[in-house]
Amino acid sequence: MSRTDRRTLLQAAAALPLSALMPTAARAEGTEGTPAAAPKPAPAKDVTRRLAHYLVTAGYDDLPANVRKEGVRTLLNWVGVAIGGSHHQTVDIAVAALAPFSGPAQASLFGRHERFDIMNAAFINGVSSHIFDYDDTHLKTIIHPAGPVASAILALSELQPVAGKDFLNALVLGVETECRIGNAVYPNHYDVGWHITGTAGVFGSAAAVGKLLKLNEEQMIWALGLAASQPVGLRESFGSMNKSFNPGRAASNGIFAAMLASKNFTSSEGMIEAKRGWANTISTKQDYNEITGDLGTRYEAALNTYKPFACGIVMHPAIDAAIQLRNENKLNADQVERVDLKVHPLVLELTGKKTPRQGLEGKFSIYHAVAVALVEGAGGEKQFSDRAVNDPTIVALRAKVNPVVTPGIKPEQVDMTVVLRDGRQLHRYVEHAIGSVEVPMTDQQLETKFSDLADGIIAAPMIRRVMDACWNVESLPSAAEIAKMSVSA
Amino acid sequence: MSRTDRRTLLQAAAALPLSALMPTAARAEGTEGTPAAAPKPAPAKDVTRRLAHYLVTAGYDDLPANVRKEGVRTLLNWVGVAIGGSHHQTVDIAVAALAPFSGPAQASLFGRHERFDIMNAAFINGVSSHIFDYDDTHLKTIIHPAGPVASAILALSELQPVAGKDFLNALVLGVETECRIGNAVYPNHYDVGWHITGTAGVFGSAAAVGKLLKLNEEQMIWALGLAASQPVGLRESFGSMNKSFNPGRAASNGIFAAMLASKNFTSSEGMIEAKRGWANTISTKQDYNEITGDLGTRYEAALNTYKPFACGIVMHPAIDAAIQLRNENKLNADQVERVDLKVHPLVLELTGKKTPRQGLEGKFSIYHAVAVALVEGAGGEKQFSDRAVNDPTIVALRAKVNPVVTPGIKPEQVDMTVVLRDGRQLHRYVEHAIGSVEVPMTDQQLETKFSDLADGIIAAPMIRRVMDACWNVESLPSAAEIAKMSVSA
Repeated sequence: MSRTDRRTLLQAAAALPLSALMPTAARAEGTEGTPAAAPKPAPAKDVTRRLAHYLVTAGYDDLPANVRKEGVRTLLNWVGVAIGGSHHQTVDIAVAALAPFSGPAQASLFGRHERFDIMNAAFINGVSSHIFDYDDTHLKTIIHPAGPVASAILALSELQPVAGKDFLNALVLGVETECRIGNAVYPNHYDVGWHITGTAGVFGSAAAVGKLLKLNEEQMIWALGLAASQPVGLRESFGSMNKSFNPGRAASNGIFAAMLASKNFTSSEGMIEAKRGWANTISTKQDYNEITGDLGTRYEAALNTYKPFACGIVMHPAIDAAIQLRNENKLNADQVERVDLKVHPLVLELTGKKTPRQGLEGKFSIYHAVAVALVEGAGGEKQFSDRAVNDPTIVALRAKVNPVVTPGIKPEQVDMTVVLRDGRQLHRYVEHAIGSVEVPMTDQQLETKFSDLADGIIAAPMIRRVMDACWNVESLPSAAEIAKMSVSA
Repeated sequence: MSRTDRRTLLQAAAALPLSALMPTAARAEGTEGTPAAAPKPAPAKDVTRRLAHYLVTAGYDDLPANVRKEGVRTLLNWVGVAIGGSHHQTVDIAVAALAPFSGPAQASLFGRHERFDIMNAAFINGVSSHIFDYDDTHLKTIIHPAGPVASAILALSELQPVAGKDFLNALVLGVETECRIGNAVYPNHYDVGWHITGTAGVFGSAAAVGKLLKLNEEQMIWALGLAASQPVGLRESFGSMNKSFNPGRAASNGIFAAMLASKNFTSSEGMIEAKRGWANTISTKQDYNEITGDLGTRYEAALNTYKPFACGIVMHPAIDAAIQLRNENKLNADQVERVDLKVHPLVLELTGKKTPRQGLEGKFSIYHAVAVALVEGAGGEKQFSDRAVNDPTIVALRAKVNPVVTPGIKPEQVDMTVVLRDGRQLHRYVEHAIGSVEVPMTDQQLETKFSDLADGIIAAPMIRRVMDACWNVESLPSAAEIAKMSVSA
């Protein structure tokens, strides 16, 4: 595969999880509408201050149970993808480039053995966690919330003692901050070209770090202001290492902002909402009610979702259907005569590659995705490896996959019929694939994803211990344990 | 003075050097026009690549003599303001906040004794150099060019050997890069709220550092792409420490970008001009001819200017006139009966404070500015100190200053008549104040400014040596000498 081919593929891969591919959830929340459908904007008054006031006063005990639970799942999923991506070439390069400039060995690099100062560590871990485009997604904004926030506060937890409850509270508040600010400017801000994970993410990092640094209200205002001064990321970079750069740099920029603010480095009082502030400068839409409305009662952090499959969302319904039919019928490849699937046009447009030869190409082949799901019952990174796309059984089976564009099938749906050699026809219609807001991944599925990602990077018994530490984060005396456990031997 | 008052003043101070106050130069260059006057845009083709190609191939020998000369003056002026601002509270705070995270002691902090890794050092030095809003100005864009670029490459020069000629070439190329990119999006980009010094400045830093790292063309494209991903600064922060943050962070972000690119951390090929790239995302105007037109023959770096007075440009003509009349007539305060000056309305609107009590307030008092200029023959930081505004002679004289708004007087002009007790009337009309493109500061004036700024921070004999090193940068075996000499004892 030439470099150009590879870049085109990476570009397309990055383009997959766009709003066009996840309309149901977005529509359900009413944020993807036309201008005519937009709610009446709230006045631009004290937005930064009201957010800061909430951040400095909101405690762990204020979090509803479902929000805590989703926060824990966000953490576990993030740790898995950070470990899983940690030996990608992109991360190796970043580590080599930054090692000469790192400060004291304050914080772990997930899945690796090096230790960097907390800002550089947060950057590297943020990069690792986004490499596979397999991290969490706030579907209303397409923000990947954990990258900027978890990277930052896990690093900070190794520098100062942070109790597990305080950690979870900061994680939720950081995610809440970035998703609310994202809501305020989405979709215009994203449409024009910003990589919203990096632009909104820096607020999430600053808010979460600021919370753990126990900033007062004025300092939190300044931290948010210094965060506003450092947006990261343009969509043009999708398909290059620069995409993963963005959540990483958002994490380190947020720490930078909060640390300066903690020493009373000042900013303006209204950097989010002022006439020449962030929202007006960076977006043609500003809905401040999304930021300050129902703080403490409405939680965007409860809407986080996790990808079950290591590829663009457009193939998820078909993989989901294939795995269901395989498992329920204990299928093996030899039994299969033909797989017919009715799909939305985007599926063939984006993933129509019939004969992938490398793992990455497999992410753009609905043929491979269905075949490997039927054979292996999964759709993780291993199923999109060079090994998988060249496996003779899977290669033979993918030739039997027949996707047909069918009117009435939405991008998040599939209608699959597996015709067996014995004449039986197995049918499955998927309305919402696993991993959507409607059909969230189970805790067990998150564990399987985690284990697959961490396999071979950290020792098997340690994988279990790290997952347990994540599930039990609220009872940990020190959240740093999670980071310290997650390194390679 | 209350905090609010102080903030209002700082805000006004920052607002002074806006395009409204410097129309002549801008108009002369034809970039401040309405959309109707805008030139036909160049096609958005290979802009990033063409710029990168120029950057990696342009050598010191290609620089015209006037460009070299202006580069040297840019350097000397920058070193002076960096030393001068180095003990401001803003810098003390930043040093305290970042010291725990700094890497090896690779680079000097100008005017101080600490040493930080090159990225943190570049940040601090960039902050120091902008504190007094007394640094250099590219009038067409209001970019302060040296902050992001000189901060970055002086730090780098302490990490790897950089001959003086190569240093000057990199400085010019960095300034050229940021000013050209600024031209491409100014004024729309600035008008909407971006602090253009920080947003364009990061390209300048990345280009200059990339040049000294000897990046190849592809790596330079990536460095520019990673720079594009990290714009810094919003105008809303003017009046707070956050304003000085912006050139500092632009400098460190540019190093971060270039260092990653040097290890082949990739970005897109067209981050400046692509549909979802920098210029389209961050501005409603994109004139790519400003970036790629006449590379190597037209030099924005030759248009750099330096402030002779430590206050907003609106008072510069009056200070200039007062100093001329004082020096030519050997005036002292006792001789003066009255000072009449015809001014543009903005002068009283922005600097109408009659009884300043603190140095900062003096920057908003045309009465104080004229009085102190007549008494001390200068308008530097010392003339806007608490000492100066409370000096009885100056306080008495400022009551005799009578500014009158007069039709036909432009913001960059003044008409001054000093009426003496002996009945004589001394008159001076200033069409362009010293420090403008039309009447640049002389080398001797730059030295006086430098000496005043560095006085009390570095030893007097060393001030002379640092200035000589700057003037002779092209013959230095190592540009690092300048940084190493510029620290406090």
